[in-house]
Amino acid sequence: MKRWQDIVLPIPDWLNTWAAEISPTLPEVDQRMAAVIDLARINVQHGGGPFAAAVFDQTSGELIAPGVNWVVPGKSSLLHAEVMALALAEQTLGSYELASYGSFELVTSAEPCCQCLGVLQWTGIASIVCGARSEDVEAIGFDEGQRAADWVQGLQRRGISVTREVMRAQAIEVLQSYRGEIYNSRLLTKP
Amino acid sequence: MKRWQDIVLPIPDWLNTWAAEISPTLPEVDQRMAAVIDLARINVQHGGGPFAAAVFDQTSGELIAPGVNWVVPGKSSLLHAEVMALALAEQTLGSYELASYGSFELVTSAEPCCQCLGVLQWTGIASIVCGARSEDVEAIGFDEGQRAADWVQGLQRRGISVTREVMRAQAIEVLQSYRGEIYNSRLLTKP
Repeated sequence: MKRWQDIVLPIPDWLNTWAAEISPTLPEVDQRMAAVIDLARINVQHGGGPFAAAVFDQTSGELIAPGVNWVVPGKSSLLHAEVMALALAEQTLGSYELASYGSFELVTSAEPCCQCLGVLQWTGIASIVCGARSEDVEAIGFDEGQRAADWVQGLQRRGISVTREVMRAQAIEVLQSYRGEIYNSRLLTKP
Repeated sequence: MKRWQDIVLPIPDWLNTWAAEISPTLPEVDQRMAAVIDLARINVQHGGGPFAAAVFDQTSGELIAPGVNWVVPGKSSLLHAEVMALALAEQTLGSYELASYGSFELVTSAEPCCQCLGVLQWTGIASIVCGARSEDVEAIGFDEGQRAADWVQGLQRRGISVTREVMRAQAIEVLQSYRGEIYNSRLLTKP
């Protein structure tokens, strides 16, 4: 009897529909962030968490892979927006090392939690662009987990550039409109 | 056209064969670590990295899910041993929150890198038991990534107990016998 099978992390069906309706190339960082914030808003309407992310080709602005927080519907704590986008990008390119295929940017509607911060370091991503700050995420009850205090400088020392507060106000708006479950929050369950 | 499909993280076929040959219940922590170190050794023979892990039921010692470092064969930087074991455990139990199903222990042949440390915080794991120390991993050229300096205390503050240096010498032996690729090492590629 085969007990364990390949790990399958489901992505929502509508993700491809969403992507088909936006411009496949978004040359300006504000356009990329606006698309990602819009994706977070749509994700909440579909029962996901108020977070989205996407991997773009840094040179052309081409969308390589989108991601949404799908932890509860997908029954996996791995399914944070950044992890989904990065894993889909690796799957699309067929490699564990994005840097072998070009220079890629992770745009995320909110600063990465401990999981996404850890995961992104091994993907070969060149840069990360964030909307809401961690304190905005914590203000609605989510937990960012244990991270190095100087995580921004730490990424930069490793050659990953970090841009913060891009369209922060719009990103906060999605967070604050969220009325769904605050899952996996150790801050709340284990004070 | 469907562009993105569910994320599939492959596990090696022989993992089920290996598990069928060991005792399904390992009541002592040294037995659990010995099995995990043995799994790391076998993984290297199959072309994986020199790391293994497993999730056990803390009360019965029952093996819930094994994991090996399968980054290169599986073409995904997510496929660290701890991530595979935790994701397989969640998939086996059908939940993003292991704590809802009991008290589970992650046994790992080496202390967790930034990715595994981040991932484990959202799984609902109750404890982590480590073999080799981070300096043992770095001594053979692997990179642990950016972590909080006080990650052990940080996990404990969050209710996750940490035990270190269980059968460290045997775990180091597997690390030092490794002659394969040192992939994803930002320390080496971006000094």
